[in-house]
Amino acid sequence: MTKLYIIKIGGNIIDDEKKLAAFLKEFASIDEHKILVHGGGKQATRLAEELKISQQVVEGRRITDAETLKVVTMVYAGLINKNIVAALQASNCNSMGLCGADGDTILAHKRKHPVMDYGFVGDVDTINTSLITFLLEKNITPVFAPITHDQQGQLLNTNADTIAQELAKGLSGFFEVTLVYSFEKSGVLLDTNDDRTLVPEINPESYHQLKAGKKIFAGMIPKLDNAFTALNSGVKKVIIGKAEELKSLLSGSAGTSIVNE
Amino acid sequence: MTKLYIIKIGGNIIDDEKKLAAFLKEFASIDEHKILVHGGGKQATRLAEELKISQQVVEGRRITDAETLKVVTMVYAGLINKNIVAALQASNCNSMGLCGADGDTILAHKRKHPVMDYGFVGDVDTINTSLITFLLEKNITPVFAPITHDQQGQLLNTNADTIAQELAKGLSGFFEVTLVYSFEKSGVLLDTNDDRTLVPEINPESYHQLKAGKKIFAGMIPKLDNAFTALNSGVKKVIIGKAEELKSLLSGSAGTSIVNE
Repeated sequence: MTKLYIIKIGGNIIDDEKKLAAFLKEFASIDEHKILVHGGGKQATRLAEELKISQQVVEGRRITDAETLKVVTMVYAGLINKNIVAALQASNCNSMGLCGADGDTILAHKRKHPVMDYGFVGDVDTINTSLITFLLEKNITPVFAPITHDQQGQLLNTNADTIAQELAKGLSGFFEVTLVYSFEKSGVLLDTNDDRTLVPEINPESYHQLKAGKKIFAGMIPKLDNAFTALNSGVKKVIIGKAEELKSLLSGSAGTSIVNE
Repeated sequence: MTKLYIIKIGGNIIDDEKKLAAFLKEFASIDEHKILVHGGGKQATRLAEELKISQQVVEGRRITDAETLKVVTMVYAGLINKNIVAALQASNCNSMGLCGADGDTILAHKRKHPVMDYGFVGDVDTINTSLITFLLEKNITPVFAPITHDQQGQLLNTNADTIAQELAKGLSGFFEVTLVYSFEKSGVLLDTNDDRTLVPEINPESYHQLKAGKKIFAGMIPKLDNAFTALNSGVKKVIIGKAEELKSLLSGSAGTSIVNE
Protein backbone atom coordinates (compact mmCIF):
# COMPACT_ATOMS: atom_id res chain seq x y z
CA MET A 1 0.00 0.00 0.00
CA THR A 2 1.07 3.60 -0.55
CA LYS A 3 2.60 5.29 2.49
CA LEU A 4 0.71 8.14 4.17
CA TYR A 5 2.04 10.30 6.99
CA ILE A 6 -0.57 12.01 9.17
CA ILE A 7 1.26 14.59 11.24
CA LYS A 8 -0.25 16.55 14.13
CA ILE A 9 1.60 19.73 15.04
CA GLY A 10 1.07 20.91 18.59
CA GLY A 11 0.29 24.25 20.08
CA ASN A 12 3.60 25.58 21.35
CA ILE A 13 5.23 25.21 17.93
CA ILE A 14 2.37 27.13 16.29
CA ASP A 15 2.98 30.01 18.70
CA ASP A 16 6.67 30.13 17.69
CA GLU A 17 6.96 31.74 14.24
CA LYS A 18 10.56 30.60 13.61
CA LYS A 19 10.01 27.01 14.79
CA LEU A 20 6.78 26.76 12.79
CA ALA A 21 8.49 28.01 9.60
CA ALA A 22 11.32 25.48 10.03
CA PHE A 23 8.80 22.68 10.69
CA LEU A 24 6.74 23.55 7.62
CA LYS A 25 9.86 23.56 5.40
CA GLU A 26 10.66 20.03 6.60
CA PHE A 27 7.06 18.93 6.27
CA ALA A 28 6.87 20.28 2.70
CA SER A 29 9.95 18.24 1.74
CA ILE A 30 8.33 14.88 2.62
CA ASP A 31 7.97 13.02 -0.69
CA GLU A 32 5.24 10.60 0.41
CA HIS A 33 1.55 11.48 0.74
CA LYS A 34 0.99 13.54 3.87
CA ILE A 35 -1.70 15.29 5.89
CA LEU A 36 -1.10 18.03 8.44
CA VAL A 37 -3.40 18.55 11.43
CA HIS A 38 -2.78 21.64 13.52
CA GLY A 39 -3.99 22.74 16.93
CA GLY A 40 -4.71 26.26 17.95
CA GLY A 41 -1.94 27.26 20.32
CA LYS A 42 -2.49 30.20 22.62
CA GLN A 43 -3.61 32.61 19.91
CA ALA A 44 -7.30 31.80 20.36
CA THR A 45 -7.03 32.31 24.12
CA ARG A 46 -5.22 35.61 23.58
CA LEU A 47 -7.84 36.84 21.09
CA ALA A 48 -10.66 35.82 23.44
CA GLU A 49 -8.96 37.82 26.21
CA GLU A 50 -8.59 40.87 23.96
CA LEU A 51 -12.30 40.59 23.10
CA LYS A 52 -13.12 40.13 26.82
CA ILE A 53 -14.68 36.73 26.22
CA SER A 54 -14.24 34.80 29.47
CA GLN A 55 -12.79 31.33 28.98
CA GLN A 56 -14.15 28.46 31.04
CA VAL A 57 -11.99 25.33 31.19
CA VAL A 58 -13.17 22.06 32.77
CA GLU A 59 -10.95 18.96 32.97
CA GLY A 60 -8.44 20.67 30.68
CA ARG A 61 -11.07 21.23 28.01
CA ARG A 62 -12.20 24.68 26.99
CA ILE A 63 -15.96 25.10 27.24
CA THR A 64 -16.91 26.35 23.79
CA ASP A 65 -19.77 28.82 24.08
CA ALA A 66 -21.09 30.62 20.97
CA GLU A 67 -18.60 33.50 21.30
CA THR A 68 -15.66 31.17 21.89
CA LEU A 69 -16.67 29.11 18.84
CA LYS A 70 -16.47 32.29 16.73
CA VAL A 71 -12.98 32.95 18.09
CA VAL A 72 -11.63 29.44 17.44
CA THR A 73 -13.21 29.38 13.97
CA MET A 74 -11.48 32.66 13.15
CA VAL A 75 -8.11 31.71 14.61
CA TYR A 76 -7.91 27.97 13.76
CA ALA A 77 -9.71 27.77 10.40
CA GLY A 78 -8.76 31.31 9.32
CA LEU A 79 -5.56 32.84 10.63
CA ILE A 80 -3.48 29.75 11.45
CA ASN A 81 -4.79 27.44 8.72
CA LYS A 82 -4.40 29.90 5.83
CA ASN A 83 -0.96 31.10 6.92
CA ILE A 84 0.24 27.49 7.11
CA VAL A 85 -1.15 26.80 3.62
CA ALA A 86 0.50 29.95 2.20
CA ALA A 87 3.83 28.91 3.77
CA LEU A 88 3.57 25.40 2.32
CA GLN A 89 2.75 26.81 -1.13
CA ALA A 90 5.94 28.88 -0.88
CA SER A 91 7.83 25.58 -0.34
CA ASN A 92 6.19 24.06 -3.43
CA CYS A 93 3.90 21.86 -1.37
CA ASN A 94 0.47 22.25 -2.94
CA SER A 95 -1.75 22.17 0.13
CA MET A 96 -5.40 22.82 0.86
CA GLY A 97 -6.66 24.13 4.18
CA LEU A 98 -9.77 22.38 5.40
CA CYS A 99 -12.09 22.26 8.36
CA GLY A 100 -14.42 19.29 8.75
CA ALA A 101 -17.27 21.17 7.06
CA ASP A 102 -15.25 21.64 3.84
CA GLY A 103 -16.23 18.87 1.46
CA ASP A 104 -17.96 17.28 4.46
CA THR A 105 -14.52 15.84 5.28
CA ILE A 106 -15.17 15.35 9.02
CA LEU A 107 -18.68 14.84 10.33
CA ALA A 108 -19.17 15.15 14.09
CA HIS A 109 -21.90 15.58 16.70
CA LYS A 110 -22.14 17.92 19.67
CA ARG A 111 -20.68 16.12 22.68
CA LYS A 112 -23.26 14.49 24.92
CA HIS A 113 -22.28 14.27 28.59
CA PRO A 114 -24.46 13.16 31.53
CA VAL A 115 -23.51 16.15 33.69
CA MET A 116 -21.31 18.61 31.80
CA ASP A 117 -22.22 20.77 28.84
CA TYR A 118 -19.01 21.32 26.89
CA GLY A 119 -20.84 23.72 24.57
CA PHE A 120 -20.06 23.56 20.85
CA VAL A 121 -17.53 20.73 21.14
CA GLY A 122 -17.69 17.97 18.54
CA ASP A 123 -16.95 14.26 18.74
CA VAL A 124 -16.07 12.75 15.35
CA ASP A 125 -18.51 10.37 13.65
CA THR A 126 -17.18 9.83 10.12
CA ILE A 127 -14.27 10.76 7.84
CA ASN A 128 -14.92 11.41 4.13
CA THR A 129 -12.11 9.11 3.01
CA SER A 130 -13.01 9.26 -0.71
CA LEU A 131 -12.55 13.03 -0.98
CA ILE A 132 -9.34 13.02 1.09
CA THR A 133 -7.90 10.09 -0.91
CA PHE A 134 -8.81 11.90 -4.08
CA LEU A 135 -6.99 15.09 -3.01
CA LEU A 136 -3.92 13.04 -2.03
CA GLU A 137 -3.92 11.32 -5.42
CA LYS A 138 -3.89 14.81 -6.98
CA ASN A 139 -0.81 15.51 -4.83
CA ILE A 140 -2.75 18.06 -2.82
CA THR A 141 -1.80 17.98 0.87
CA PRO A 142 -4.78 18.50 3.21
CA VAL A 143 -4.14 20.80 6.17
CA PHE A 144 -6.82 20.33 8.81
CA ALA A 145 -7.94 22.92 11.36
CA PRO A 146 -9.58 21.38 14.47
CA ILE A 147 -13.10 22.48 13.56
CA THR A 148 -15.80 20.04 12.40
CA HIS A 149 -19.52 20.24 11.56
CA ASP A 150 -22.69 18.30 12.32
CA GLN A 151 -24.33 18.42 8.85
CA GLN A 152 -27.06 20.57 10.45
CA GLY A 153 -25.17 23.82 9.91
CA GLN A 154 -23.37 23.85 13.23
CA LEU A 155 -19.58 24.18 13.40
CA LEU A 156 -17.96 22.33 16.31
CA ASN A 157 -14.66 22.77 18.13
CA THR A 158 -12.84 19.42 18.03
CA ASN A 159 -9.64 18.16 19.64
CA ALA A 160 -6.82 18.13 17.06
CA ASP A 161 -5.21 14.94 18.45
CA THR A 162 -8.54 13.18 18.01
CA ILE A 163 -8.91 14.48 14.45
CA ALA A 164 -5.43 13.17 13.59
CA GLN A 165 -6.31 9.81 15.13
CA GLU A 166 -9.68 9.56 13.34
CA LEU A 167 -8.07 10.48 10.01
CA ALA A 168 -5.40 7.83 10.60
CA LYS A 169 -8.02 5.18 11.44
CA GLY A 170 -10.28 6.11 8.55
CA LEU A 171 -7.50 6.17 5.97
CA SER A 172 -5.63 3.06 7.18
CA GLY A 173 -7.82 0.94 4.91
CA PHE A 174 -6.40 2.74 1.85
CA PHE A 175 -2.86 3.65 2.89
CA GLU A 176 -0.04 2.39 5.06
CA VAL A 177 -0.53 5.08 7.70
CA THR A 178 2.09 6.44 10.09
CA LEU A 179 0.56 8.79 12.68
CA VAL A 180 2.93 11.36 14.15
CA TYR A 181 2.18 13.55 17.16
CA SER A 182 4.83 16.27 17.02
CA PHE A 183 5.15 18.92 19.70
CA GLU A 184 7.75 20.67 21.87
CA LYS A 185 8.94 17.60 23.80
CA SER A 186 11.32 14.91 22.53
CA GLY A 187 8.74 12.20 23.07
CA VAL A 188 7.49 10.29 26.10
CA LEU A 189 9.82 11.27 28.95
CA LEU A 190 10.07 9.80 32.45
CA ASP A 191 11.19 13.26 33.60
CA THR A 192 9.44 15.86 31.42
CA ASN A 193 12.36 18.24 31.94
CA ASP A 194 15.08 15.79 30.96
CA ASP A 195 15.32 14.66 27.33
CA ARG A 196 17.73 11.91 28.40
CA THR A 197 14.79 10.10 30.06
CA LEU A 198 13.15 9.52 26.66
CA VAL A 199 11.29 6.21 26.33
CA PRO A 200 12.18 5.11 22.76
CA GLU A 201 9.46 2.47 22.46
CA ILE A 202 6.21 1.69 24.26
CA ASN A 203 4.12 -1.46 23.81
CA PRO A 204 0.85 -2.32 25.59
CA GLU A 205 2.66 -4.14 28.40
CA SER A 206 5.25 -1.43 29.13
CA TYR A 207 2.49 1.20 28.84
CA HIS A 208 0.53 -0.62 31.52
CA GLN A 209 3.60 -0.70 33.79
CA LEU A 210 4.48 2.98 33.15
CA LYS A 211 0.90 4.02 33.98
CA ALA A 212 0.71 1.78 37.05
CA GLY A 213 4.00 3.29 38.27
CA LYS A 214 2.65 6.82 37.58
CA LYS A 215 5.79 7.34 35.48
CA ILE A 216 4.00 9.18 32.68
CA PHE A 217 3.08 12.86 32.72
CA ALA A 218 -0.73 13.04 32.90
CA GLY A 219 -0.97 15.21 29.79
CA MET A 220 0.61 12.41 27.76
CA ILE A 221 -1.94 9.72 28.71
CA PRO A 222 -4.69 10.80 26.24
CA LYS A 223 -2.09 10.92 23.43
CA LEU A 224 -0.93 7.39 24.23
CA ASP A 225 -4.50 6.09 24.60
CA ASN A 226 -5.22 7.64 21.18
CA ALA A 227 -2.08 6.00 19.84
CA PHE A 228 -3.06 2.48 20.92
CA THR A 229 -6.64 2.97 19.71
CA ALA A 230 -5.20 3.95 16.32
CA LEU A 231 -2.87 0.92 16.21
CA ASN A 232 -5.80 -1.34 17.07
CA SER A 233 -7.69 0.18 14.13
CA GLY A 234 -5.13 -0.64 11.46
CA VAL A 235 -2.70 2.26 11.73
CA LYS A 236 0.80 0.92 11.02
CA LYS A 237 2.86 3.03 13.41
CA VAL A 238 2.48 5.91 15.88
CA ILE A 239 5.38 8.22 16.71
CA ILE A 240 5.48 10.94 19.37
CA GLY A 241 8.29 13.48 19.39
CA LYS A 242 9.77 16.90 18.84
CA ALA A 243 8.46 18.90 15.87
CA GLU A 244 11.97 20.23 15.18
CA GLU A 245 13.15 16.67 14.60
CA LEU A 246 10.41 15.72 12.11
CA LYS A 247 12.70 13.96 9.64
CA SER A 248 14.37 11.94 12.43
CA LEU A 249 10.95 11.06 13.82
CA LEU A 250 9.87 9.67 10.45
CA SER A 251 13.13 7.72 10.04
CA GLY A 252 12.71 6.28 13.53
CA SER A 253 15.94 7.78 14.91
CA ALA A 254 14.15 10.10 17.36
CA GLY A 255 10.99 10.24 19.46
CA THR A 256 8.91 7.50 21.04
CA SER A 257 7.50 4.73 18.86
CA ILE A 258 4.22 3.20 19.98
CA VAL A 259 3.88 -0.40 18.85
CA ASN A 260 1.31 -3.12 19.38
CA GLU A 261 3.66 -5.86 20.55
CA MET B 1 -20.84 23.61 -22.83
CA THR B 2 -21.93 22.90 -19.27
CA LYS B 3 -23.49 25.86 -17.47
CA LEU B 4 -21.66 27.42 -14.53
CA TYR B 5 -23.03 30.13 -12.27
CA ILE B 6 -20.46 32.26 -10.45
CA ILE B 7 -22.34 34.20 -7.81
CA LYS B 8 -20.87 37.00 -5.71
CA ILE B 9 -22.76 37.79 -2.52
CA GLY B 10 -22.25 41.30 -1.20
CA GLY B 11 -21.52 42.67 2.21
CA ASN B 12 -24.85 43.85 3.56
CA ILE B 13 -26.45 40.43 3.03
CA ILE B 14 -23.61 38.74 4.90
CA ASP B 15 -24.25 41.04 7.87
CA ASP B 16 -27.93 40.00 7.94
CA GLU B 17 -28.20 36.49 9.40
CA LYS B 18 -31.78 35.86 8.19
CA LYS B 19 -31.21 37.20 4.66
CA LEU B 20 -27.97 35.22 4.36
CA ALA B 21 -29.66 31.98 5.47
CA ALA B 22 -32.46 32.48 2.93
CA PHE B 23 -29.94 33.28 0.18
CA LEU B 24 -27.86 30.19 0.96
CA LYS B 25 -30.97 27.95 0.84
CA GLU B 26 -31.76 29.30 -2.65
CA PHE B 27 -28.13 29.04 -3.73
CA ALA B 28 -27.92 25.42 -2.52
CA SER B 29 -30.98 24.52 -4.63
CA ILE B 30 -29.32 25.53 -7.93
CA ASP B 31 -28.92 22.30 -9.92
CA GLU B 32 -26.17 23.52 -12.25
CA HIS B 33 -22.50 23.84 -11.36
CA LYS B 34 -22.00 26.88 -9.15
CA ILE B 35 -19.33 28.86 -7.31
CA LEU B 36 -19.98 31.30 -4.46
CA VAL B 37 -17.71 34.28 -3.81
CA HIS B 38 -18.37 36.24 -0.65
CA GLY B 39 -17.20 39.60 0.60
CA GLY B 40 -16.55 40.52 4.18
CA GLY B 41 -19.31 42.83 5.24
CA LYS B 42 -18.82 45.01 8.28
CA GLN B 43 -17.70 42.20 10.59
CA ALA B 44 -14.01 42.71 9.82
CA THR B 45 -14.32 46.44 10.47
CA ARG B 46 -16.13 45.75 13.75
CA LEU B 47 -13.52 43.24 14.89
CA ALA B 48 -10.71 45.66 13.98
CA GLU B 49 -12.44 48.33 16.08
CA GLU B 50 -12.82 45.95 19.04
CA LEU B 51 -9.11 45.15 18.75
CA LYS B 52 -8.33 48.88 18.45
CA ILE B 53 -6.71 48.43 15.03
CA SER B 54 -7.14 51.74 13.24
CA GLN B 55 -8.56 51.37 9.74
CA GLN B 56 -7.17 53.54 6.96
CA VAL B 57 -9.31 53.82 3.83
CA VAL B 58 -8.12 55.56 0.64
CA GLU B 59 -10.32 55.87 -2.47
CA GLY B 60 -12.81 53.51 -0.89
CA ARG B 61 -10.17 50.83 -0.42
CA ARG B 62 -9.07 49.65 2.98
CA ILE B 63 -5.32 49.91 3.45
CA THR B 64 -4.36 46.43 4.59
CA ASP B 65 -1.53 46.65 7.10
CA ALA B 66 -0.21 43.48 8.79
CA GLU B 67 -2.72 43.67 11.66
CA THR B 68 -5.65 44.33 9.31
CA LEU B 69 -4.60 41.37 7.15
CA LYS B 70 -4.81 39.14 10.24
CA VAL B 71 -8.32 40.44 10.92
CA VAL B 72 -9.64 39.92 7.37
CA THR B 73 -8.01 36.48 7.19
CA MET B 74 -9.77 35.50 10.43
CA VAL B 75 -13.14 36.97 9.49
CA TYR B 76 -13.30 36.28 5.74
CA ALA B 77 -11.47 32.94 5.42
CA GLY B 78 -12.44 31.72 8.90
CA LEU B 79 -15.67 32.95 10.46
CA ILE B 80 -17.73 33.86 7.37
CA ASN B 81 -16.39 31.23 4.97
CA LYS B 82 -16.76 28.25 7.32
CA ASN B 83 -20.22 29.26 8.53
CA ILE B 84 -21.39 29.58 4.91
CA VAL B 85 -19.97 26.14 4.11
CA ALA B 86 -21.62 24.58 7.18
CA ALA B 87 -24.97 26.16 6.18
CA LEU B 88 -24.66 24.85 2.60
CA GLN B 89 -23.82 21.36 3.90
CA ALA B 90 -27.04 21.51 5.94
CA SER B 91 -28.90 22.16 2.65
CA ASN B 92 -27.22 19.16 1.02
CA CYS B 93 -24.92 21.32 -1.08
CA ASN B 94 -21.48 19.75 -0.73
CA SER B 95 -19.30 22.84 -0.65
CA MET B 96 -15.66 23.57 0.07
CA GLY B 97 -14.43 26.84 1.51
CA LEU B 98 -11.32 28.15 -0.16
CA CYS B 99 -9.03 31.13 -0.15
CA GLY B 100 -6.67 31.68 -3.07
CA ALA B 101 -3.82 29.93 -1.25
CA ASP B 102 -5.82 26.70 -0.92
CA GLY B 103 -4.77 24.42 -3.78
CA ASP B 104 -3.08 27.50 -5.23
CA THR B 105 -6.51 28.35 -6.67
CA ILE B 106 -5.90 32.11 -7.00
CA LEU B 107 -2.39 33.47 -7.44
CA ALA B 108 -1.93 37.21 -6.96
CA HIS B 109 0.78 39.82 -6.41
CA LYS B 110 0.98 42.71 -3.94
CA ARG B 111 -0.48 45.77 -5.66
CA LYS B 112 2.10 48.10 -7.15
CA HIS B 113 1.12 51.76 -7.24
CA PRO B 114 3.29 54.75 -8.20
CA VAL B 115 2.30 56.77 -5.13
CA MET B 116 0.08 54.78 -2.79
CA ASP B 117 0.98 51.73 -0.71
CA TYR B 118 -2.22 49.74 -0.29
CA GLY B 119 -0.42 47.36 2.04
CA PHE B 120 -1.18 43.65 1.72
CA VAL B 121 -3.67 44.02 -1.12
CA GLY B 122 -3.48 41.53 -3.96
CA ASP B 123 -4.17 41.87 -7.68
CA VAL B 124 -5.01 38.54 -9.33
CA ASP B 125 -2.55 36.95 -11.77
CA THR B 126 -3.84 33.44 -12.45
CA ILE B 127 -6.73 31.11 -11.63
CA ASN B 128 -6.07 27.38 -11.14
CA THR B 129 -8.85 26.33 -13.52
CA SER B 130 -7.91 22.62 -13.52
CA LEU B 131 -8.40 22.20 -9.76
CA ILE B 132 -11.62 24.22 -9.70
CA THR B 133 -13.03 22.35 -12.73
CA PHE B 134 -12.10 19.11 -11.05
CA LEU B 135 -13.96 20.04 -7.83
CA LEU B 136 -17.02 21.09 -9.84
CA GLU B 137 -16.97 17.75 -11.70
CA LYS B 138 -17.01 16.04 -8.28
CA ASN B 139 -20.11 18.15 -7.53
CA ILE B 140 -18.23 20.07 -4.88
CA THR B 141 -19.21 23.75 -4.82
CA PRO B 142 -16.25 26.07 -4.18
CA VAL B 143 -16.95 28.95 -1.76
CA PHE B 144 -14.27 31.62 -2.09
CA ALA B 145 -13.20 34.08 0.60
CA PRO B 146 -11.59 37.25 -0.80
CA ILE B 147 -8.06 36.32 0.29
CA THR B 148 -5.33 35.29 -2.17
CA HIS B 149 -1.61 34.49 -1.96
CA ASP B 150 1.58 35.35 -3.85
CA GLN B 151 3.26 31.89 -3.87
CA GLN B 152 5.95 33.42 -1.63
CA GLY B 153 4.04 32.73 1.58
CA GLN B 154 2.19 36.04 1.73
CA LEU B 155 -1.60 36.17 2.04
CA LEU B 156 -3.22 39.14 0.30
CA ASN B 157 -6.56 40.92 0.78
CA THR B 158 -8.35 40.93 -2.58
CA ASN B 159 -11.55 42.56 -3.80
CA ALA B 160 -14.35 39.95 -3.96
CA ASP B 161 -15.94 41.45 -7.10
CA THR B 162 -12.59 41.13 -8.86
CA ILE B 163 -12.19 37.52 -7.70
CA ALA B 164 -15.65 36.67 -9.07
CA GLN B 165 -14.76 38.35 -12.37
CA GLU B 166 -11.37 36.61 -12.66
CA LEU B 167 -12.95 33.22 -11.88
CA ALA B 168 -15.60 33.90 -14.55
CA LYS B 169 -12.97 34.88 -17.12
CA GLY B 170 -10.69 31.96 -16.28
CA LEU B 171 -13.46 29.36 -16.36
CA SER B 172 -15.30 30.68 -19.44
CA GLY B 173 -13.06 28.52 -21.62
CA PHE B 174 -14.47 25.40 -19.99
CA PHE B 175 -18.03 26.36 -19.04
CA GLU B 176 -20.87 28.56 -20.24
CA VAL B 177 -20.43 31.09 -17.43
CA THR B 178 -23.08 33.40 -16.00
CA LEU B 179 -21.60 35.89 -13.55
CA VAL B 180 -24.00 37.23 -10.93
CA TYR B 181 -23.29 40.16 -8.60
CA SER B 182 -25.97 39.87 -5.93
CA PHE B 183 -26.33 42.46 -3.19
CA GLU B 184 -28.96 44.53 -1.36
CA LYS B 185 -30.15 46.58 -4.37
CA SER B 186 -32.51 45.41 -7.14
CA GLY B 187 -29.88 46.07 -9.80
CA VAL B 188 -28.64 49.19 -11.56
CA LEU B 189 -30.99 51.98 -10.47
CA LEU B 190 -31.27 55.53 -11.80
CA ASP B 191 -32.41 56.51 -8.32
CA THR B 192 -30.67 54.26 -5.80
CA ASN B 193 -33.61 54.65 -3.41
CA ASP B 194 -36.30 53.76 -5.95
CA ASP B 195 -36.51 50.16 -7.22
CA ARG B 196 -38.90 51.35 -9.96
CA THR B 197 -35.96 53.08 -11.65
CA LEU B 198 -34.29 49.72 -12.36
CA VAL B 199 -32.41 49.54 -15.66
CA PRO B 200 -33.27 46.01 -16.92
CA GLU B 201 -30.53 45.86 -19.54
CA ILE B 202 -27.28 47.70 -20.22
CA ASN B 203 -25.16 47.38 -23.36
CA PRO B 204 -21.88 49.22 -24.12
CA GLU B 205 -23.70 52.11 -25.83
CA SER B 206 -26.32 52.68 -23.12
CA TYR B 207 -23.59 52.33 -20.48
CA HIS B 208 -21.63 55.10 -22.18
CA GLN B 209 -24.71 57.34 -22.18
CA LEU B 210 -25.61 56.54 -18.55
CA LYS B 211 -22.06 57.35 -17.45
CA ALA B 212 -21.89 60.53 -19.56
CA GLY B 213 -25.19 61.65 -18.04
CA LYS B 214 -23.86 60.83 -14.54
CA LYS B 215 -26.97 58.69 -14.12
CA ILE B 216 -25.18 55.82 -12.39
CA PHE B 217 -24.30 55.71 -8.69
CA ALA B 218 -20.49 55.92 -8.46
CA GLY B 219 -20.24 52.73 -6.43
CA MET B 220 -21.79 50.81 -9.32
CA ILE B 221 -19.23 51.89 -11.94
CA PRO B 222 -16.48 49.39 -10.93
CA LYS B 223 -19.06 46.56 -10.95
CA LEU B 224 -20.17 47.51 -14.45
CA ASP B 225 -16.62 47.95 -15.70
CA ASN B 226 -15.88 44.47 -14.30
CA ALA B 227 -19.01 43.18 -16.03
CA PHE B 228 -17.98 44.41 -19.48
CA THR B 229 -14.42 43.20 -19.01
CA ALA B 230 -15.85 39.77 -18.19
CA LEU B 231 -18.14 39.78 -21.25
CA ASN B 232 -15.20 40.75 -23.45
CA SER B 233 -13.29 37.77 -22.03
CA GLY B 234 -15.81 35.12 -22.97
CA VAL B 235 -18.27 35.25 -20.07
CA LYS B 236 -21.75 34.55 -21.46
CA LYS B 237 -23.84 36.83 -19.27
CA VAL B 238 -23.52 39.18 -16.29
CA ILE B 239 -26.45 39.90 -13.98
CA ILE B 240 -26.58 42.44 -11.16
CA GLY B 241 -29.43 42.33 -8.67
CA LYS B 242 -30.93 41.63 -5.27
CA ALA B 243 -29.62 38.60 -3.39
CA GLU B 244 -33.12 37.82 -2.10
CA GLU B 245 -34.27 37.39 -5.72
CA LEU B 246 -31.51 34.98 -6.73
CA LYS B 247 -33.77 32.54 -8.61
CA SER B 248 -35.43 35.40 -10.54
CA LEU B 249 -32.02 36.85 -11.33
CA LEU B 250 -30.90 33.54 -12.84
CA SER B 251 -34.15 33.19 -14.84
CA GLY B 252 -33.73 36.76 -16.12
CA SER B 253 -36.97 38.05 -14.60
CA ALA B 254 -35.23 40.41 -12.18
CA GLY B 255 -32.09 42.53 -11.91
CA THR B 256 -30.00 44.23 -14.57
CA SER B 257 -28.55 42.17 -17.40
CA ILE B 258 -25.26 43.39 -18.86
CA VAL B 259 -24.89 42.41 -22.50
CA ASN B 260 -22.30 43.08 -25.17
CA GLU B 261 -24.60 44.37 -27.89
